[in-house]
Amino acid sequence: MRSPGIGPVTYRQLIARFGTPAAALQAVPDLARRGGGKAPTLRSRSDAEREIAQVDKLGAKFLSLGQGLYPRLLAELEDAPPLLIAKGDLTLLDRQAVAIVGARNASAAACRFARGLAHDLGEQGLVVVSGLARGIDSAAHDGALETGTIGVVAGGIDFFYPPENEARQTALYERGLVLAEMPPGTEPRARHFPYRNRIIAGLAVGTVVVEAAPRSGSLITARLAAEAGREVMAVPGSPLDPRAQGCNQLIRQGATLVQNAHDVLEAVRPLQPRLASSHSPYEPGEPQWMDGDAGALGIVEDLLGPSPVPVDEIIRLSGAPSGAVQMALLELDLAGRLDRHAGGKVSIRPA
Amino acid sequence: MRSPGIGPVTYRQLIARFGTPAAALQAVPDLARRGGGKAPTLRSRSDAEREIAQVDKLGAKFLSLGQGLYPRLLAELEDAPPLLIAKGDLTLLDRQAVAIVGARNASAAACRFARGLAHDLGEQGLVVVSGLARGIDSAAHDGALETGTIGVVAGGIDFFYPPENEARQTALYERGLVLAEMPPGTEPRARHFPYRNRIIAGLAVGTVVVEAAPRSGSLITARLAAEAGREVMAVPGSPLDPRAQGCNQLIRQGATLVQNAHDVLEAVRPLQPRLASSHSPYEPGEPQWMDGDAGALGIVEDLLGPSPVPVDEIIRLSGAPSGAVQMALLELDLAGRLDRHAGGKVSIRPA
Repeated sequence: MRSPGIGPVTYRQLIARFGTPAAALQAVPDLARRGGGKAPTLRSRSDAEREIAQVDKLGAKFLSLGQGLYPRLLAELEDAPPLLIAKGDLTLLDRQAVAIVGARNASAAACRFARGLAHDLGEQGLVVVSGLARGIDSAAHDGALETGTIGVVAGGIDFFYPPENEARQTALYERGLVLAEMPPGTEPRARHFPYRNRIIAGLAVGTVVVEAAPRSGSLITARLAAEAGREVMAVPGSPLDPRAQGCNQLIRQGATLVQNAHDVLEAVRPLQPRLASSHSPYEPGEPQWMDGDAGALGIVEDLLGPSPVPVDEIIRLSGAPSGAVQMALLELDLAGRLDRHAGGKVSIRPA
Repeated sequence: MRSPGIGPVTYRQLIARFGTPAAALQAVPDLARRGGGKAPTLRSRSDAEREIAQVDKLGAKFLSLGQGLYPRLLAELEDAPPLLIAKGDLTLLDRQAVAIVGARNASAAACRFARGLAHDLGEQGLVVVSGLARGIDSAAHDGALETGTIGVVAGGIDFFYPPENEARQTALYERGLVLAEMPPGTEPRARHFPYRNRIIAGLAVGTVVVEAAPRSGSLITARLAAEAGREVMAVPGSPLDPRAQGCNQLIRQGATLVQNAHDVLEAVRPLQPRLASSHSPYEPGEPQWMDGDAGALGIVEDLLGPSPVPVDEIIRLSGAPSGAVQMALLELDLAGRLDRHAGGKVSIRPA
């Protein structure tokens, strides 16, 4: 998972195919060669042991996709993080959660609203998930600190960003829960935030957006929530208020307008039965791929181009069994020749 | 139409049955007797002539349901006013119209918004309809005064209410259009406003609500627009603003969130083809009732009670032909024994 070139989707497919990380690690060089590239540089055993010791020393824990403590709703995402680092009260992962996200530079009124909403949802037994950012995120965590709140950080579990949130993040270690996908010590970079946002959206039965500018990170979280089949909710504002435009736009696109905790509960209630169904991503039902159909690799390679196309289309056009196509894609991926795009699309780089 | 006890629905049914007002007037006493009551006191010919002279003297005109100048979209309402009095530019009735309504005590910002929206919609060729009330209504008329606006008053065409709107109403006589259902000189009373609101909703392809309190007249207009199959649009606001609650509630119930003229145009565009279809309420296609089924009257009378029930249900339960049931209802109506309620429901008073 820490090896460059192996993302969550590839990781998940390797485990689905080879059963264990150890078996997958052994197979990767061979698969990459068949895909026509050189093998990714795999992280060493000692790198892994160093991180494990580090996490242990921080008083944090690993949560591994497919294992008991791993949040079940998050596991439903196609690109669920294979590994999470968690510090705090792990029992919060067993309760239904709602995400509250919004602008870092939100108005004081909107922050007060977010804090009140988080408080009221907490009183109703819901855990509030957010991103420990300035503005709405901070207000949401504050409102639900007494009842249960989870902060997902973009960098390492031990990195405070923004720096002034150190006290808040520390409070969450002690009275809430902090989750990170990146290894300890990682300073968050721009590209980390969308990854963080998918975790926020994935943990929650629904996401409430409070004040968001058009094209902001909060709208990305909302889109990811919608793609994951979760409820998207938005708090409206006057068209005269530029900070309301993102939320109003979301409502126009079909998000549920919410004005209070009651509205949120009404919107997420139909989703509650999902929580009852135990769902492990590696249980039977996961596609089992066929081996030994070397011919599929050439066909798939020919079908791919620089423009992203849906995997389903490649399967259909190839005429090959779906398992054989998936294996060919995995080989190209490990050879560093496949790019994975949003919506399950893939494209190929020239060999 | 000016006779007490004959409302728009009854009037329309009488004309549908008897062809002309003269024939209907002759038939009313007989029908009422068959319904088990005494005939309504019919207004005299001289009363009618006096009103016609008065309207003429005011420089106003009658528009009669089923005749050329009568607004076609309004004629689609089941309870379309049989007669309208109009003063101003009648050509405005030929253009597509959007209603803008809202709170009388709206915020200055909302009034400015309404004026700007009306202006922008006017620039796009739409006529703006409203109710010549304080607040949002006045702002909407002002914004569209140059491009075309219709004010529907609750009282007589010559009555200024609120009094401070005299200059605005006079401007609409000269550069827009004013419509009234009540006879000249009528001072508007509380019960007149919902009637006025149905005309606003009925004239327009869609109604935009800007700032409205829960349970306000603007929400009645929105409901009437929805019942008439027109587009209902609402301008959102912060949940912290009590004046936004009515609009936010409308959006939660399915109204389209609009932030500007572009959003309004996008919402009403699919309805434009309706304007092309010439639709006269008295053309073939109108149900023709069967005569001479005196037995239906007794059955219908037995089926009715003091609680309102849908006419469709009475028809179904009676086992009688729909035309015979309608005739029986008309007879009871003219006998002063039938009450008509929203949603096509009826109830009976004891004989």
